[in-house]
Amino acid sequence: MAAAARIELIALAGFPRVEPGDDLGQLVAGSLADNALALQSGDVLVLAQKIVSKAEDCYVELADIEPSPEALELAARADKDPRQAELILRESREVLRVRPGVIIVEHRNGYVHANAGIDKSNIEIDPDNPRVLLLPENPDASAQRLRLDLERRTGVAPQVIINDSAGRAWRNGTVGIAIGTAGLEPLFNQVGEKDMFGNVLEVTEPAVADELAAAASLVMGQAAEACPVVLVRGATLQPADTGSGSLLRDRSMDLFR
Amino acid sequence: MAAAARIELIALAGFPRVEPGDDLGQLVAGSLADNALALQSGDVLVLAQKIVSKAEDCYVELADIEPSPEALELAARADKDPRQAELILRESREVLRVRPGVIIVEHRNGYVHANAGIDKSNIEIDPDNPRVLLLPENPDASAQRLRLDLERRTGVAPQVIINDSAGRAWRNGTVGIAIGTAGLEPLFNQVGEKDMFGNVLEVTEPAVADELAAAASLVMGQAAEACPVVLVRGATLQPADTGSGSLLRDRSMDLFR
Repeated sequence: MAAAARIELIALAGFPRVEPGDDLGQLVAGSLADNALALQSGDVLVLAQKIVSKAEDCYVELADIEPSPEALELAARADKDPRQAELILRESREVLRVRPGVIIVEHRNGYVHANAGIDKSNIEIDPDNPRVLLLPENPDASAQRLRLDLERRTGVAPQVIINDSAGRAWRNGTVGIAIGTAGLEPLFNQVGEKDMFGNVLEVTEPAVADELAAAASLVMGQAAEACPVVLVRGATLQPADTGSGSLLRDRSMDLFR
Repeated sequence: MAAAARIELIALAGFPRVEPGDDLGQLVAGSLADNALALQSGDVLVLAQKIVSKAEDCYVELADIEPSPEALELAARADKDPRQAELILRESREVLRVRPGVIIVEHRNGYVHANAGIDKSNIEIDPDNPRVLLLPENPDASAQRLRLDLERRTGVAPQVIINDSAGRAWRNGTVGIAIGTAGLEPLFNQVGEKDMFGNVLEVTEPAVADELAAAASLVMGQAAEACPVVLVRGATLQPADTGSGSLLRDRSMDLFR
């Protein structure tokens, strides 16, 4: 009998609180050791965007933000703090939809995201000086740095995914998506199948990085809040020197903008 | 140290080819035994839509289909076989977008899906009498039947997800989504968090059934074609007597139609 294909996802227990300037490679290597895990070839590490942003000090104090007239107008339409609206505009290429409570944009990194991914939950807030947390400047670069750093520390270069929870068209609820990757092919380009008339069908490309980002999000969410790093074994993703750009549909090809 | 949260996904090896009229519960129970696995409380079984459709004989022979004038017009716009266009119309509530090669609809079961999920790949085709495979009539009911049947056979009622690969707005590649569920709450309704001003934020609801459907799709895809059933251990999804309807965004709330 053929061996069953297996994937295992392990949320690292006891991951420390991350502060600006922390060395994520050191924290991850330490947490793997604490969890009695050693990196193996083919392992994937999925990190929640939030800890990457914290380590890279992507905090912004709202007191420092001066809303533009455009931000004031947007804030009124969305029923939001004008300073948040200003930050959303600065972090975005285009505003796609606005309704009370949500501003859906194309983020400067290309993904369509509510509120430009700007986060107010699970960060320490001083009521006298509120702050928010932006997405990392360049999540692909962050993922690649971590991959190389862990290779230096452990001798094994893991594939890395930085994930974030995202809303979707048509369906309720959020799912984890990959906003940065290193060492893996985000789309699994299957050889074109033929249809019943012998014609080659449109190529089926599973977005494997997003599928794994979603799975990791489930493990992070089921665990306590302090499980922002998930080790994945058995995923057998294709190696690649690319980042996550191929996951982004070109706007000229997007039927739902 | 707290134990790390773990999820394991196991693609059942050697799952038999499914034919119309087959008893899926019997096939799954047999395959679990072949793989030396016994159902445990909290286990989730994810089944590829295709084997459910095959067991329920959702095949349609194109020779039996008479395209309507509307189907002829749609087929011309989409560069498709008019009989396929006719089936897509019959399976749908509304056509949302058309471009050469793809017709995006709201399926009669509510999900937005390319070509109404009608499948021509990996099914046996007689060139003289081509056929296609529709989605199951009612995937929630199919999932519930399987859940109860396996409970009768094994004494353990697994949570069940029927998944399908779906395209998305904004992002390239397909991901697995849940088109039918039984025994689980598809959305994990987290208690409303408070924002930095002490206000309750919009509730964050991870679509856990879709996250698990995506993860299972990855395991099915990485394995050989004959791995349409995945056993998931450790997901700790909330039990519920509901189906998958809560995953569907009401069209009045959908900003991207």
